[in-house]
Amino acid sequence: MKDDIVADYLREILIELQDNSEGEVADYIPQLADADPEPFSVALCTTDGQIYAQGLNEGDVELEFTIQSMSKPFAYALALKEHTLKKVARFVGMEPSGEAFNELSLDGETKRPMNPMINAGAITVNQLINGEESPVEERVEKIVEFFSELADRTLSIDMATCNSEIETSDRNMSLAHMLRSYDMIQDESHDAVESYIQQCSIKVTVSDLAMMAATLANGGEHPVTGKQVCSKRVALQVQAVMASAGMYDGAGRWMASVGIPAKSGVSGGIIGTLPGRLGIAAFSPKLDSSGNSVRACRVFEHLSRDMGLHLMAAEKRGRVAVRNISTVEGSAADKGIKTIIRLQGDIDFNAGEKIWRTIREHEFASKSVLVDLDKVDEVNDVGERMLRELYEHFEADGYQMELVDSDGVLSR
Amino acid sequence: MKDDIVADYLREILIELQDNSEGEVADYIPQLADADPEPFSVALCTTDGQIYAQGLNEGDVELEFTIQSMSKPFAYALALKEHTLKKVARFVGMEPSGEAFNELSLDGETKRPMNPMINAGAITVNQLINGEESPVEERVEKIVEFFSELADRTLSIDMATCNSEIETSDRNMSLAHMLRSYDMIQDESHDAVESYIQQCSIKVTVSDLAMMAATLANGGEHPVTGKQVCSKRVALQVQAVMASAGMYDGAGRWMASVGIPAKSGVSGGIIGTLPGRLGIAAFSPKLDSSGNSVRACRVFEHLSRDMGLHLMAAEKRGRVAVRNISTVEGSAADKGIKTIIRLQGDIDFNAGEKIWRTIREHEFASKSVLVDLDKVDEVNDVGERMLRELYEHFEADGYQMELVDSDGVLSR
Amino acid sequence: MKDDIVADYLREILIELQDNSEGEVADYIPQLADADPEPFSVALCTTDGQIYAQGLNEGDVELEFTIQSMSKPFAYALALKEHTLKKVARFVGMEPSGEAFNELSLDGETKRPMNPMINAGAITVNQLINGEESPVEERVEKIVEFFSELADRTLSIDMATCNSEIETSDRNMSLAHMLRSYDMIQDESHDAVESYIQQCSIKVTVSDLAMMAATLANGGEHPVTGKQVCSKRVALQVQAVMASAGMYDGAGRWMASVGIPAKSGVSGGIIGTLPGRLGIAAFSPKLDSSGNSVRACRVFEHLSRDMGLHLMAAEKRGRVAVRNISTVEGSAADKGIKTIIRLQGDIDFNAGEKIWRTIREHEFASKSVLVDLDKVDEVNDVGERMLRELYEHFEADGYQMELVDSDGVLSR
Amino acid sequence: MKDDIVADYLREILIELQDNSEGEVADYIPQLADADPEPFSVALCTTDGQIYAQGLNEGDVELEFTIQSMSKPFAYALALKEHTLKKVARFVGMEPSGEAFNELSLDGETKRPMNPMINAGAITVNQLINGEESPVEERVEKIVEFFSELADRTLSIDMATCNSEIETSDRNMSLAHMLRSYDMIQDESHDAVESYIQQCSIKVTVSDLAMMAATLANGGEHPVTGKQVCSKRVALQVQAVMASAGMYDGAGRWMASVGIPAKSGVSGGIIGTLPGRLGIAAFSPKLDSSGNSVRACRVFEHLSRDMGLHLMAAEKRGRVAVRNISTVEGSAADKGIKTIIRLQGDIDFNAGEKIWRTIREHEFASKSVLVDLDKVDEVNDVGERMLRELYEHFEADGYQMELVDSDGVLSR
Repeated sequence: MKDDIVADYLREILIELQDNSEGEVADYIPQLADADPEPFSVALCTTDGQIYAQGLNEGDVELEFTIQSMSKPFAYALALKEHTLKKVARFVGMEPSGEAFNELSLDGETKRPMNPMINAGAITVNQLINGEESPVEERVEKIVEFFSELADRTLSIDMATCNSEIETSDRNMSLAHMLRSYDMIQDESHDAVESYIQQCSIKVTVSDLAMMAATLANGGEHPVTGKQVCSKRVALQVQAVMASAGMYDGAGRWMASVGIPAKSGVSGGIIGTLPGRLGIAAFSPKLDSSGNSVRACRVFEHLSRDMGLHLMAAEKRGRVAVRNISTVEGSAADKGIKTIIRLQGDIDFNAGEKIWRTIREHEFASKSVLVDLDKVDEVNDVGERMLRELYEHFEADGYQMELVDSDGVLSR
Repeated sequence: MKDDIVADYLREILIELQDNSEGEVADYIPQLADADPEPFSVALCTTDGQIYAQGLNEGDVELEFTIQSMSKPFAYALALKEHTLKKVARFVGMEPSGEAFNELSLDGETKRPMNPMINAGAITVNQLINGEESPVEERVEKIVEFFSELADRTLSIDMATCNSEIETSDRNMSLAHMLRSYDMIQDESHDAVESYIQQCSIKVTVSDLAMMAATLANGGEHPVTGKQVCSKRVALQVQAVMASAGMYDGAGRWMASVGIPAKSGVSGGIIGTLPGRLGIAAFSPKLDSSGNSVRACRVFEHLSRDMGLHLMAAEKRGRVAVRNISTVEGSAADKGIKTIIRLQGDIDFNAGEKIWRTIREHEFASKSVLVDLDKVDEVNDVGERMLRELYEHFEADGYQMELVDSDGVLSR
Repeated sequence: MKDDIVADYLREILIELQDNSEGEVADYIPQLADADPEPFSVALCTTDGQIYAQGLNEGDVELEFTIQSMSKPFAYALALKEHTLKKVARFVGMEPSGEAFNELSLDGETKRPMNPMINAGAITVNQLINGEESPVEERVEKIVEFFSELADRTLSIDMATCNSEIETSDRNMSLAHMLRSYDMIQDESHDAVESYIQQCSIKVTVSDLAMMAATLANGGEHPVTGKQVCSKRVALQVQAVMASAGMYDGAGRWMASVGIPAKSGVSGGIIGTLPGRLGIAAFSPKLDSSGNSVRACRVFEHLSRDMGLHLMAAEKRGRVAVRNISTVEGSAADKGIKTIIRLQGDIDFNAGEKIWRTIREHEFASKSVLVDLDKVDEVNDVGERMLRELYEHFEADGYQMELVDSDGVLSR
Repeated sequence: MKDDIVADYLREILIELQDNSEGEVADYIPQLADADPEPFSVALCTTDGQIYAQGLNEGDVELEFTIQSMSKPFAYALALKEHTLKKVARFVGMEPSGEAFNELSLDGETKRPMNPMINAGAITVNQLINGEESPVEERVEKIVEFFSELADRTLSIDMATCNSEIETSDRNMSLAHMLRSYDMIQDESHDAVESYIQQCSIKVTVSDLAMMAATLANGGEHPVTGKQVCSKRVALQVQAVMASAGMYDGAGRWMASVGIPAKSGVSGGIIGTLPGRLGIAAFSPKLDSSGNSVRACRVFEHLSRDMGLHLMAAEKRGRVAVRNISTVEGSAADKGIKTIIRLQGDIDFNAGEKIWRTIREHEFASKSVLVDLDKVDEVNDVGERMLRELYEHFEADGYQMELVDSDGVLSR
């Protein structure tokens, strides 16, 4: 079999949407205004590192474009990683900003930007990276490094677009000065904007973005390299804020209709994450009046509707946690019978509950039990606690317990 | 083993939080002001129908209280069930309403209430149920019936609280008149408010609420009765809107810190859902200044933090979809070997992708393959599509395929 | 001379504007929707009681219509008269309410209506009249009485329009309930709205309105009856608030272009005041989209532009305060010469300053001076103080002073 | 008489308020933070050019300070003078801006600053002066020239304060960039802010300000030099906008309690105008939390309350327009009697109406009438029209008319 179902699906979507030529290429940055409007691509990256990328035309998958506002969640992750959530929250909130025309969206009382997904918040977040005293170059270097780690390749900055954008950055300059006036940032406004725009000018492909998003979806553990790039708590925080505020004043409608925490960029890309499942990216340069890629939005709608990829879609959990319960010939002490409980998959609360219930309903043939974890992939904190308590309950009831954990999925 | 781990956990949480006596019993409804502030309970209902309910004191679990604003998501589900999403969306939006003090929260242009989780939206949703022409009694009967179906027992209205609330319903009367003035509702304001307050006065226990929430979490299929109480799309819509707007102007912070789509009521309860996993409810009458139960909020924080119950928590999916691949002795045609692929659990996109990948990497010993679905619990649309395409790919490659699906998990 | 210049001017304006048939008769009150759209009239009342009223058609001047929102400034005056400004200000503010669509316009913190010119404020003001405990009938009686005093004839209520409006009063009912919920009013919402709508249904002619407005313009002293209907402070307060908030969210433009503190009503009238100068009223039923009479607005623009009637128009004051200074033959003590200073007109600060300056520059022929106030109309507080000090200065300088004040314009 | 009543009054006010040491010197501009907090002065300038200035301490009257935001109305006047009102209104509105914390206060739709009294509007107005292409120096030169004309002396810029402010001008830089982003201004942000801050740094005394304000109050005609510095329409427009928006979100309360269109500056001054009457200025550096001079506010309250200086104060107009009507011996044609009508003061609409009425009620002894205008100061347009029509009416009735107008107060 040379074909690939997932790749086929993605390709189908591109073909179905290829005639949609609505929207306009971003015009406020001269360099972007010259962009070819044709490229159209989509990529998925599973939380175990499988990447599917498809382009409508030759070269679309390999095409590099600037990351723009899609950098916001990742920069937020880096700031959260460098500082505590508590510190970052002193400078940037996590509420939707409501009205789109209110460009400042500072909290009326604290003067904090409402969230890190709007420009005011993103400029503030950028300033936190590598410390407020950091020179622009060093801060941007840190960001490029972190993004490269997420994309699993060395990324670089598109200086032409960057310079072009700096020249037309009145909106951002306005925000930076306002943030300075409220002591939200300390750097010179020009430097703050330059630093932020360099972050926005990092060049990525649609596959890079899918992999970067998948790292968030995978709780901060890189799905390919396996490195814990940021903590679970950070990955969770970033995705929660994307869900609430990533699509600006249409966030509620997006979460209801598409249901994928997402962030778009004016270069024409949209990234999305489905926790535990996927990182997603789509790209096509023509934008609607809200600045979102028309075709990329459609791609997300297709993925959500046709492939059940919606945060609220109710795929059941934990039902296969108990692989089987069997008995084998044992020693005299077990009346010759030993019960083997084989667990599998990921053990979270739902799995733990299922295991517990299954076992309580089981009629054991003897007091000798072996719990086999060799087919278990991962055990989270509550899962481990539940397994340990299960074990202790058995022992307290006079059972003779054995545990097989060849891969060491339990913490000790 | 007489004990129960999950129940123990819940009980631990109640005990840990029992000394928290902050907040005040709701005082704006006389009947609620007289409520005993002591009761404290929590309940979980898994999507396969297991209920765990614990109370701090004797009788807390059985205690009936009025559902109040926790009725909003369920009434929204009923309205969506009776009408199309498109029609309901003409009358009620799905965006967070921002500022808390803006009691009206009508969209500036359309004059629709911003979402069904605020009173203006809930009154409007209530009016859609059983049609705009419906007498109050018939409408309320429909609602009690639907809520009873969700709770799997016959619920009734607390007329004392209802009457007490109607007497002090200036805020709601104000909203109803305003909605009438914009043609959002047609009924007499008094009737609209009475209808809505009767909805709010339905008596429930903490277990009822957990089961009702679990039905949403389970995609509209009742976890105990198995009845499809509302469509998957409706359950998804309701939970998405709860996530965006259920906790008013603190929705963003709640989603980041707790990460459970939730709705609170002034009687002291909070319900939450984790799609595919759990319905959750907690109850204790003392409220904070935003009108949320102090102790119930703490319970949700514990559940989220200690038990990994957060929408963005990245528990991996689909890794155990392929139970095993084995070979058995076959007929002459298979060179004497048949490969058996045993699938298990729920087959969604992630599972489909995993299955596909696993099989592609497998070296088959012969062209004879049997796919065994007997351990598969459920197959969603994309999952079925992927299985079918997998099947066709094999056939196209000249394989001789057999399918075992004793329970008929595939649609035909 | 049978003709009348002023009347001619007013008639000219009506004729010039008669072809303007833009706008629509108010449709939200059935009784108003049936109104004849043709009537068109204007009236001026000078602060010394001269009334000029002109109608386009036979009967327009005598036509009675309901006062509607034009009752707001007068009811505010009555509330201020019955209570102190301080007390009234606890319930109703005096700031423009900004956005028109924000129907509530309650102050975010105090929950007071922003000003008495919006419905929320007017309902609250109405409730203050005759005390919060007042039955509706008695309150309305007080209002009819006060308005009758202002119009110098017995007014009555148009019960047909009143009842018609009560039936379609959702907006006002909404406001009343909201005000009750914030303890801004105490009455039953229905009674509060009925009381307010009866106030709005008082029947007036365009001449009545001009006279009522002229009483405000004349510092609370009725220009015809001479009765001090309310204090100067109250008249001043009412006109200041009309200037800031009378024309809703277009108040700033109105003050710049027209410059006449004004209030419109949906029946088609607009009243205006020019302090010290005029009360003005115009009437024609067709309304623009903001609910202001199209033709009446045009009338005010004409009056402002063509007749210099603008609050900021810089007509000089006080220049003729000194009628003349002359000498007459006196007694031996005056070396045979007495200087007579004849003052005239109204003596306010500017007049006082002018008098003082004129006298300082005068070379007196002897130390005998007579100040003649017989041509002085009125002396305000600062004017009197200045005259007294002038007098004392003369005496201190050794002048022998006489004062002629036959009409007693000085307070003692 | 060496003393001066008006000066005494002003001095009394200063002494009464001298113990008020509330407030803080502006701290956001370093140069202002070092200001001596003690100076306290007040000045009035009548519309006929008399100036009264008093200081609490030696040198207070002569003290120069920067004009700051008090420059806004005068710069607005200059922009209106150079362009049409229509053009200026395309860039700056004239509505109150409501909420103080909304620093941008741009109209949601047009993106125009709400009015020229807030910084966003003032920066935009500044840019209109001398054309958008103007170099900063030339624009500022124009402004200094215009302000010097208003103050009747050569003003200059305090470069130390100017430079100090430019260094801490994040708020203004933010506004300038935002205005640029909406094409409201074209200049480089830095230049726009520098131009505006130089305007704010023009040094004035309290007497300068009173004279500048008096020019507006006098309809654009300088009260001392007699030069028409700007048109009546411009002076009226500026004062109307000051009345609506000069005191920010407290504009309504200020107009009700003080009733003097006013503008304050952070250096500690407040200017005010009473059309036709006075220009007013008060100065003392300590500011309240809204940035208004504490003592200067109190001075305005005193002037309003104690001296009747309130825009809505109802001083009657026009009552002395007819000085007298007398008869003299005439020719045979008059049956030997000629009636002489002597008019005086300013002839506006109210005066015209009074004249007309007085004459209509007069019983003429013959058909020979002489109208004597030699004691008339000024005749405005409507006044002249009324006089002419009066004249024509007489002639039409067969009167033989003579007119004495030695000073040529009529236009021909």
